[in-house]
Amino acid sequence: MPGLAVYFLPVPGFTEPQRHLLAVFLATVLSLVVKPAVMGVCVLLALTLLAVTGTVPANRVLLGFSNQTVWLIFSAYLFARAVSSTGLGMRVAYVLIRRFATTPLRLGYAVVSAGMIVAPFVPSDTARGGSVVFPVTRSLALAFGSEPGETARRIGSFLMLVSFHGNYLASAVFLTSMVANPLIAQMVMKIANVEITWLGWLGGSCVPAVVSALLVPYFIHRWHPPELTDTAPARELAGRRLAELGAMTGAEWRLVVILGVVMMGWVTSPWHGIGNAYVALVGICAQLLSGLLSWDELLGETKAWDVLLWFAPLIMMADELNAGGAVKVASDALFGRLVGLPWTAGLGVLVLVYLYLHYGFASMTAQVTALYPAFFTAALALGAPPMVAALPLGYFSNLNAGLTPYGTGSAPVFYGAGYVGEGEWWRIGFLVSLVNVVVWLGVGGVWWKVIGLW
Amino acid sequence: MPGLAVYFLPVPGFTEPQRHLLAVFLATVLSLVVKPAVMGVCVLLALTLLAVTGTVPANRVLLGFSNQTVWLIFSAYLFARAVSSTGLGMRVAYVLIRRFATTPLRLGYAVVSAGMIVAPFVPSDTARGGSVVFPVTRSLALAFGSEPGETARRIGSFLMLVSFHGNYLASAVFLTSMVANPLIAQMVMKIANVEITWLGWLGGSCVPAVVSALLVPYFIHRWHPPELTDTAPARELAGRRLAELGAMTGAEWRLVVILGVVMMGWVTSPWHGIGNAYVALVGICAQLLSGLLSWDELLGETKAWDVLLWFAPLIMMADELNAGGAVKVASDALFGRLVGLPWTAGLGVLVLVYLYLHYGFASMTAQVTALYPAFFTAALALGAPPMVAALPLGYFSNLNAGLTPYGTGSAPVFYGAGYVGEGEWWRIGFLVSLVNVVVWLGVGGVWWKVIGLW
Repeated sequence: MPGLAVYFLPVPGFTEPQRHLLAVFLATVLSLVVKPAVMGVCVLLALTLLAVTGTVPANRVLLGFSNQTVWLIFSAYLFARAVSSTGLGMRVAYVLIRRFATTPLRLGYAVVSAGMIVAPFVPSDTARGGSVVFPVTRSLALAFGSEPGETARRIGSFLMLVSFHGNYLASAVFLTSMVANPLIAQMVMKIANVEITWLGWLGGSCVPAVVSALLVPYFIHRWHPPELTDTAPARELAGRRLAELGAMTGAEWRLVVILGVVMMGWVTSPWHGIGNAYVALVGICAQLLSGLLSWDELLGETKAWDVLLWFAPLIMMADELNAGGAVKVASDALFGRLVGLPWTAGLGVLVLVYLYLHYGFASMTAQVTALYPAFFTAALALGAPPMVAALPLGYFSNLNAGLTPYGTGSAPVFYGAGYVGEGEWWRIGFLVSLVNVVVWLGVGGVWWKVIGLW
Repeated sequence: MPGLAVYFLPVPGFTEPQRHLLAVFLATVLSLVVKPAVMGVCVLLALTLLAVTGTVPANRVLLGFSNQTVWLIFSAYLFARAVSSTGLGMRVAYVLIRRFATTPLRLGYAVVSAGMIVAPFVPSDTARGGSVVFPVTRSLALAFGSEPGETARRIGSFLMLVSFHGNYLASAVFLTSMVANPLIAQMVMKIANVEITWLGWLGGSCVPAVVSALLVPYFIHRWHPPELTDTAPARELAGRRLAELGAMTGAEWRLVVILGVVMMGWVTSPWHGIGNAYVALVGICAQLLSGLLSWDELLGETKAWDVLLWFAPLIMMADELNAGGAVKVASDALFGRLVGLPWTAGLGVLVLVYLYLHYGFASMTAQVTALYPAFFTAALALGAPPMVAALPLGYFSNLNAGLTPYGTGSAPVFYGAGYVGEGEWWRIGFLVSLVNVVVWLGVGGVWWKVIGLW
């Protein structure tokens, strides 16, 4: 492992403990990309190694587990569970389709909107794809008689593309709609001592997100038009499914109330000062007390435990690296040449490099962990205001997911359904990334000026 | 809830945040005793309440989750899983029985020894009872044709009593053989700044434990003699079961090596300085890498997650109470009258009161959480040397489990098997407690003098 090399070879500019830490960290991130074993195993090995060698002091090695960000994400997985298990997510999707899907493009908008609505409570595009967006999209395609192969182009391939690109777009919109977004907020807090609140994240994303959500399906419709134009079967299917679901159940109503209260809690946190994680825990307690979630179900929610175990040590390592100054050293070494550019141009370059580096990553979180701090530090060094540096890099940490068939957990799901060929997937992925660059850096840049971020 | 009363009524000697904290803590401990809901739910509610009300600062509420004690216990549950799932625990029991069980009393010793051997890696008398001791005892009784009812006294009731009293005795022997023992070590560290190492705990327990393990089955044999004297069927059964198990599997050998290394790591920790939790994590990593434990099995080990979720907030509350001085205030108020006694007499009184208060508790951990800090602080105030105050209270935090049919998780299991009547259970329980008092305070007291604790 290259980590070993870094561990033992002197690297200029780093002290010895910092070098050891960097070595373990790089080896871990590399393992997240190459995946020789399950993520959790690699991270747990790294944590144990750091503890046993004393590279990180014993009383700090486990600090990731008391990190609020980690428990916010843990809680969010339990919300996602409820959205899926109560059937609320499906209901939202079918209501939107029955009501609005009068043309194929509008059908696409309806599916994307359904993803957006559940996004604040489902912190993973894979989970959102798996629990709501993908099953709905697939059953819509089948309702049109569009299957992989000859009938794919009737409407299935169009729907898959729109759903996929809309699905990770939703990840960029809310602080709690992707697992790495709170991590980004945490990194920004540590590096620049600037707080990205739940509302602050949404404030920056809302306008470009709306533009993107309108333009991306529109352009996909242009570049990859469906053969069918009559969407009556979709509305019929939605009506049938809603009839099967029946009236809103008590569980769904209770969940709606709880999710509403939690979202209010997040939105108003600048005023009451209760952290996002604790607001989420109130929601979990409410789920437990109202019978939406039993203790055994909580204990059996292995995805939440998985994320706890791999996320907490990563956060600890990132914190330690940053506290030790390693991020600054690495960032200066990598981006020293950009110094002298106006920060607006420099930041643009950084965002573009950051975006297209994702061709080499199979996970948004892996890229955030590996690269976000260095890129953010470089943007600060160029003189960018902290929020204007933090937010676009954060949004593109999500928008980069659409480039390839492997760029995020949901990509293999939509791609693997077999409606869209490989060449077409890459072509549309690249074209959509251009739309997003124009929208988020262009419209977004103006919007951030309007709301006074710079 | 009485917690509410404490929350709002002024209690002399406490500041307002301390009073609020004490209220939540008392309500939580009460809920552990009364069990209106699952332990985890109550504890999680308490944690959320403390965070949302700001009673404990937001950055300290989650600190329990980065506590090494918590992760030591978490890891120990994964060891217990391996001991049980590989069949190693059963094999140890049957080997001992086949080899040594020539009389009913020796059969009893064999079963108790089997429990002792797995004890360092099974941090719960319930888990040990459930995975090894109880199933072995029951199949032994059945092999003698001794069933609940008329044939119970042939040998089944004797074996059940010996197994039960030997099983919680094993909890007292090792720092890692009961979930609350590391908690005790942690409390002692916080209150008196004295470290109870793994070896230190065993050093104090080994001599009285051996005497107790010899005397308790002997006295039970006197007080509750079995009718049968021929133990050939037990040895035959053991031989048959061992034949079924076959030779030691590769998994068992790997586990033996891993457990050996981990135990060496715990024993030598005063020299290499690596904390018990990290030594245990090395063992978990080894289990993962050697294929003894898969990541999914780890994530699905709900008992370990359960203990993580209820233990960490309890530790946080105990730390906060102690740091705020509430323990000292409570202890002085309760035990002020003992001042003036020589500390030896005073400590004896404290231990006896602590022991027999367990008639009112259904869980050893609940009593430790609720009472240990106050009793330990009182013993210190009497002038007892910290270790001599800490250890006997610690040992009797385990030995108190034998008094009733509800005093620990394993008691209902052995009692519920139906071999022993209720009156007999209480009678033997009280008599055994007298033996333990004489052995642990008498022999133990002398031994602690010999090894220089006082």
